[in-house]
Amino acid sequence: MKALFFDKDLKYISDYPKPVPAEGEALIKIRLAGVCNTDIEITKGYMHFKGVPGHEFVGIVEEVTGNDKKLLGKRVVGDINCSCREPECEYCNKHLGRHCPDRITLGIDRKDGCFAEYITLPVENLIEVPDSVSDENAVFAEPLAAAFEILEQVEIKADKKVLIVGDGKLGILINHAISTTKAKIYHVGKHPEKLKLLSSDHCKILHKDQEDNSKYDIVIEATGSPEGFQYSVDHTKPRGILVLKSTLAESQNINLSPIVVNEITVVGSRCGIFSRAIDYLKTGVDFTPLVSGIFHIEKGVEAFAAATEKKAIKILISF
Amino acid sequence: MKALFFDKDLKYISDYPKPVPAEGEALIKIRLAGVCNTDIEITKGYMHFKGVPGHEFVGIVEEVTGNDKKLLGKRVVGDINCSCREPECEYCNKHLGRHCPDRITLGIDRKDGCFAEYITLPVENLIEVPDSVSDENAVFAEPLAAAFEILEQVEIKADKKVLIVGDGKLGILINHAISTTKAKIYHVGKHPEKLKLLSSDHCKILHKDQEDNSKYDIVIEATGSPEGFQYSVDHTKPRGILVLKSTLAESQNINLSPIVVNEITVVGSRCGIFSRAIDYLKTGVDFTPLVSGIFHIEKGVEAFAAATEKKAIKILISF
Repeated sequence: MKALFFDKDLKYISDYPKPVPAEGEALIKIRLAGVCNTDIEITKGYMHFKGVPGHEFVGIVEEVTGNDKKLLGKRVVGDINCSCREPECEYCNKHLGRHCPDRITLGIDRKDGCFAEYITLPVENLIEVPDSVSDENAVFAEPLAAAFEILEQVEIKADKKVLIVGDGKLGILINHAISTTKAKIYHVGKHPEKLKLLSSDHCKILHKDQEDNSKYDIVIEATGSPEGFQYSVDHTKPRGILVLKSTLAESQNINLSPIVVNEITVVGSRCGIFSRAIDYLKTGVDFTPLVSGIFHIEKGVEAFAAATEKKAIKILISF
Repeated sequence: MKALFFDKDLKYISDYPKPVPAEGEALIKIRLAGVCNTDIEITKGYMHFKGVPGHEFVGIVEEVTGNDKKLLGKRVVGDINCSCREPECEYCNKHLGRHCPDRITLGIDRKDGCFAEYITLPVENLIEVPDSVSDENAVFAEPLAAAFEILEQVEIKADKKVLIVGDGKLGILINHAISTTKAKIYHVGKHPEKLKLLSSDHCKILHKDQEDNSKYDIVIEATGSPEGFQYSVDHTKPRGILVLKSTLAESQNINLSPIVVNEITVVGSRCGIFSRAIDYLKTGVDFTPLVSGIFHIEKGVEAFAAATEKKAIKILISF
């Protein structure tokens, strides 16, 4: 099958072996996949991953190994964490399979991902996409679930001032997720053309270089850069909450003192619950203005290059 | 008066001007003061402080400006944060004067500290020391209050495994504070002679170089070193809590990814409530085994040098 393969560098392979579903797994034919910053970080060495990257997808279930055939032929998205699901596992037990210590992760950790014509995933990981949601929107389910994860971890009440830092794709999706609360939202970025994509009716838009001496109850860091982290720390109120959403391959030079002095609570936040993302997609929201380009899998290496360009928001890979 | 003075370097001055209490302030004659890591960091540039350092003290109220004379002649310890106390201040209003944006801080931020014969502090900051508590124990009230601050911020239930990282003075005091909970305590350090000072009946002692693949529900970082931070992150369970207690002048090279991936909550923790420390001191606990040396104020520069020695725990300054 056609696939992108990473091992020190990224290349397109036309005859990569098609995966075989294990017991309880589905074989999924990918229709559309999204390039995430984590994929870019993987090409810089993050997670020491070797194999097919990619973890944002929408596809069709072509085969199911096991008795639970109800998703056969259906269009699905899916949770990328394949956990042990043992009853004695502290995390699987609490529906936190995304923290299972024995998990492997699609396109990130010891499991080939979706920049290929086919993937396999446990049937329990999959969720059907309603007909009303297009492929181009469904492919946003994974990062959108990650954005909604913030609301699983932090209670955001109506009287809170929330600052979102970063106008990349993750920042924009986080803006949507937080807009489902009644909090007052502020969003800071440095790309006017990207900031325009935020719904201006529910948030105040700030440019990075605008002087802002305000402090916010909750700050959400979605740049992944040391400067973004510093900006976020500087704008978090004493005893406030700073949510970290980005993972980077590299260490950063960071001063942790303000976190101690101001008794800031820093909340690391990663993958989320897909049903919440699908529920939001069902409201009819349209994420296609975020799509900066669609590349066929054969041009996948170019898709990665396009995704690193500053003006790019979401790059998709088609099959 | 005799004082230590810092402005790029630390020196002893025999004729530093005696402070004059403002309205509502007390003039306190210092009996004993403690050298803290923050003082050492100040001599490296932390807070860009210039003046008399020192914020751990026990002293006698010699004068009070204002009507509230009940502490006159009493032996006191005191909160080092001088806040605005305005009714409209969001923090003072919630008894969080230690986060008041207009505060100045004894020996740390724009207010001369206690490595001098006299200091001034607002009367409201002071708390009387019971006769049963010696000066050598009372002088631990400030760092002990900081240790107890953790219990103000994090609920530590009986079924939790808590790891304390670092066997310096702060780590040892934190061990005492956490021992008032019913949680199972583990304590890791690298100085066997310091680890011996922990009460072995309420915690399991580990040496830094001992292999420990366990993950803990709550990890408390009290080394302030990049290695200690990394060790703490590595030993925090997914969705666990990492408490940061140390402030350092310098930035550190840090990888934040594990905090995001494991959705760790990092809680910055600083000063605490003195009444809680005094209550614990009243139980008859004896901290004098932690005192590595007592230097007269005239030898204060040597006291600082002694405090930086690896084998030192708490260095005191007498008058």
